[in-house]
Amino acid sequence: MYTAPVDEIAFTLKHVAGLGEALDAGVLGDLDEDVVDAILHEAGRFATDEVAPLAEIGDRQGSKLIDGNVKTPDGWADLYRRWAEGGWNGLTAPEEFGGQNLPHMLNVAALEMWNSGSMAFALAPTLTMGAVEALVKHGSDALKATYLENLVTGKWTGTMNLTEPQAGSDLAALKSRAERAEDGTYRIFGQKIFITWGEHDAAENIIHLVLARLPDAPAGTRGISLFLVPKFLPDAAGNPGERNDLFCHALEHKLGIHGSPTCTMIFGDGRFGEEKGAIGWLVGEENKGLACMFTMMNNARLAVGMQGVAICEAATQKAIEYARDRTQGKAPGTKATGMSPIIEHPDIARTLLTMKALTQGSRAISFACAHAIDMSHAKSDATEQKFWQERAALLTPIAKSFSTDAGVDVASLGIQVHGGMGFIEETGAARYLRDARIAPIYEGTNGIQAIDLVLRKLPLSEGQQVRGFIGELKAVADAVRASNKPELGETARYLDQSLADLEETTEWLLDGIAKSETTAVLAGATPYQRLFGLALTGTYLAKGALASVDDGQGAKRDALCRFAAENLLAETTALKDRVISGAASLESARAVLA
Amino acid sequence: MYTAPVDEIAFTLKHVAGLGEALDAGVLGDLDEDVVDAILHEAGRFATDEVAPLAEIGDRQGSKLIDGNVKTPDGWADLYRRWAEGGWNGLTAPEEFGGQNLPHMLNVAALEMWNSGSMAFALAPTLTMGAVEALVKHGSDALKATYLENLVTGKWTGTMNLTEPQAGSDLAALKSRAERAEDGTYRIFGQKIFITWGEHDAAENIIHLVLARLPDAPAGTRGISLFLVPKFLPDAAGNPGERNDLFCHALEHKLGIHGSPTCTMIFGDGRFGEEKGAIGWLVGEENKGLACMFTMMNNARLAVGMQGVAICEAATQKAIEYARDRTQGKAPGTKATGMSPIIEHPDIARTLLTMKALTQGSRAISFACAHAIDMSHAKSDATEQKFWQERAALLTPIAKSFSTDAGVDVASLGIQVHGGMGFIEETGAARYLRDARIAPIYEGTNGIQAIDLVLRKLPLSEGQQVRGFIGELKAVADAVRASNKPELGETARYLDQSLADLEETTEWLLDGIAKSETTAVLAGATPYQRLFGLALTGTYLAKGALASVDDGQGAKRDALCRFAAENLLAETTALKDRVISGAASLESARAVLA
Repeated sequence: MYTAPVDEIAFTLKHVAGLGEALDAGVLGDLDEDVVDAILHEAGRFATDEVAPLAEIGDRQGSKLIDGNVKTPDGWADLYRRWAEGGWNGLTAPEEFGGQNLPHMLNVAALEMWNSGSMAFALAPTLTMGAVEALVKHGSDALKATYLENLVTGKWTGTMNLTEPQAGSDLAALKSRAERAEDGTYRIFGQKIFITWGEHDAAENIIHLVLARLPDAPAGTRGISLFLVPKFLPDAAGNPGERNDLFCHALEHKLGIHGSPTCTMIFGDGRFGEEKGAIGWLVGEENKGLACMFTMMNNARLAVGMQGVAICEAATQKAIEYARDRTQGKAPGTKATGMSPIIEHPDIARTLLTMKALTQGSRAISFACAHAIDMSHAKSDATEQKFWQERAALLTPIAKSFSTDAGVDVASLGIQVHGGMGFIEETGAARYLRDARIAPIYEGTNGIQAIDLVLRKLPLSEGQQVRGFIGELKAVADAVRASNKPELGETARYLDQSLADLEETTEWLLDGIAKSETTAVLAGATPYQRLFGLALTGTYLAKGALASVDDGQGAKRDALCRFAAENLLAETTALKDRVISGAASLESARAVLA
Repeated sequence: MYTAPVDEIAFTLKHVAGLGEALDAGVLGDLDEDVVDAILHEAGRFATDEVAPLAEIGDRQGSKLIDGNVKTPDGWADLYRRWAEGGWNGLTAPEEFGGQNLPHMLNVAALEMWNSGSMAFALAPTLTMGAVEALVKHGSDALKATYLENLVTGKWTGTMNLTEPQAGSDLAALKSRAERAEDGTYRIFGQKIFITWGEHDAAENIIHLVLARLPDAPAGTRGISLFLVPKFLPDAAGNPGERNDLFCHALEHKLGIHGSPTCTMIFGDGRFGEEKGAIGWLVGEENKGLACMFTMMNNARLAVGMQGVAICEAATQKAIEYARDRTQGKAPGTKATGMSPIIEHPDIARTLLTMKALTQGSRAISFACAHAIDMSHAKSDATEQKFWQERAALLTPIAKSFSTDAGVDVASLGIQVHGGMGFIEETGAARYLRDARIAPIYEGTNGIQAIDLVLRKLPLSEGQQVRGFIGELKAVADAVRASNKPELGETARYLDQSLADLEETTEWLLDGIAKSETTAVLAGATPYQRLFGLALTGTYLAKGALASVDDGQGAKRDALCRFAAENLLAETTALKDRVISGAASLESARAVLA
């Protein structure tokens, strides 16, 4: 059973991802380490004791659509209410709306733990947090007054209604429409698919944020507006009143996250009254909806990255536990009689160490991304603000894609460690793979993340943001060499090579972008994204190994760092080659697919 | 919907894996190309038109245990009977028992197609074929006379009963017991788990091959005997008579292959009569059961490799079809208006080409393994026989592991190409991943295959078998260089590098084995196995590209070969590094798992 790795999370936040320096520098207000530790421990306890035990029943029962209502798995509605009452929904939200105004770093750390407990469950608040953020940034005062407190406390939940059958990655194709009403509200019509927690029984109201087009809107993405469309229209006292003209038409039958209801939502077909059209309120400006939605989506991407980290952690814990208990064969060099625990077999040890390294690497990358977001909020100087906004923007696609790919890979390795038992559903290892498999897809597929990384993020500040970042990473490699720690083996050499690969590939891509060689650049986007993630994994593990913290874990950190460097980093050279030399062959090979 | 790629399979058999030369040399008797083509086309038709359409219902309904009987999915029992009536079960079996005595190459080609149609369905005959083989080689004349014809025709099916809860990879730990009866038969007692098609309604009798220990047997693997234990004891006329004392106690609830009943079998608890003990007959000699079982297992390993190939093919077809139909965004460089088919986006094209390269590589490796088996049977000269037996032995773990790992990777990439639709079960892409995930586990996990490869197969003929094989592969690289085909781009250079990596790593492992550095050797076994598979993929794709066959596909073969060389082969250097430099860090990192 999952146990939240609170100490490892706290260490990574403080000594790898930048929380320690930020606390020391006082840029996070009066927040101190004791409060951080207390929050992490309590989140860990709740995730371990309350969320994780309900994961399996959630997977087995799933959410069900009964007469238009969604019945969540036994115990989940109550679990959600207890979770919200714990104040967990509003960690980063403004205090004026009932939030705690804490750094994003704490929230993503907590998100990791909720998702390790149950990814399907943690999806509900993840979407609500996105809705809060969109309203805080773009909502009118009236909308804020009516909705924010109930969303911040988690009394009501939120959704993102983007996708339509013909409009997935390409939102320009969306067709849902909005009509202006005389009272300043709008009427929304259309069908949305893949709406996470679009309907359920865990909260008294559900606030949908819906993308739609006005009749006179320009074509494409510049003609999309964002609307707030509540399930129940608030009455004069702010309580859920009349039912709005929207409903859940169907639930998807999915590979995983069975507990999370994935809804097809119908807006405006007049199911609950004579008059047709779901009543909605504009969020932000007309035709500027995509910008508002991107506010939500950027943080949602990091939140999905945390799902990857979470699955990595939970699957690794489970596999290690099994490998310690299960005995088969005799490990080489063992002096014990009888069968050995399989964790002693070199191939199993290699597998588990790879899982641990990917887990820790994904976590560090994602926490560093959250740190950059926090710094961009904490800084008032425009140059510093821009620097940190760009750093967050650069790290977001890597945090999302590398962590979610790692989630799938680690969950699959976890099944393998279990042998035949891994294929049996009751063991629980297979659920991690089934759940993990959606994370590289939603909130922008990892292929879309890669396009975003190379076409939008590398050119930030004419390439100086990414160049400066690589410089910082090289300083870590230098520090490893300077440390002369024999425990780190050949880490410095492997880091040098990986960062040189990263640098060369980055320059090649920047050059290609400058020359508008878009096809070649895009052909290398995915291998480049993985190269970046691996180089960061090696660097952040080294940063952790160099931190002098007397917690008795230093030797383990050294050893994992060395293992990752000497086993995982050589791949960056192959990836560099794939980016730089692979594009030409890809063009000629199009004929194969014709 | 899956369409059997008969032409590509035939090309690979004849021009890459060696069937063409064997036919030309007349070593396969009077078999000719027309017969080969006719068989492949008819198998392709049956797999496409009859098997594939029943895959989805098999997955959805699964097999069910009702009052001790297993109900297979609707239509499956009938499908199985039609399949057996087609003569497909006995392709390679001796003619005297109703078989067709055809080469294994044809059978694995057909197996690929059955498994692409439905892996869960194809498992039933796969096990039967193994039972036939064990009986042909090790059964007494009486057993052969009673059982073989019905097994060869598929009228009865066979199983392999190896695993027990405490004995999976390590069969030394098995506890099922056998007692000698006065009439020369045996009484079998014990519980077996994970018994594929252990009970079902598609055949009138089920013949279990069961590993058990005699009371006076030595401990460990040298005390295991193999018994034939029929569900119904044949009566005097050879028809199914009295029920034997064995039954299916439970079915597993699995991640995939839902249609295939995975049974817990109980032998000898007296459910059907006063007297306890399932009646069994010895196969081979007492205490020599493991050797008999290995006869079955070696070919079963190749058959599981074919499952990997089959999933690769089916998942790739499905993804390409979707990517041609689905439009989103605008591909770079396109002149068309509106959204582009996603197949035109470079990242999707890269993904699909990677899937195709892995499919074709896995197929060629597996067919080459079957070719070696055929040659070992066809040759009468002892030296030649030994050579081909060793070649088959060397290729078997690679065919099993590389193909099944590819099956998981390709199925996962296939989901990714489908975007959100890939996660919806009705789409069918997710089933391939769920089914594929068992193949790296059963018939010896891929970790066990890697151990087998390095510790047992590399030392064959003091390393001369593998060295000779690498020499053959280098000759292909030389031929690529000599061909001067510009369409192959940098293929020769990449092949040279990969084969040098393979050679260096092989020598390092042989040296380690000679020095009994078992831990270091085993630590590198899995990356070495993948290195070998990748180098073979590149070489076999090149061999296909060099074949001068005027079928209009030459340009595509060239392009895919070049793509694979320039995008996939650089990984071998990273894998070499992992084998040679990774072991030391692995030892020091054991503490991380403590």
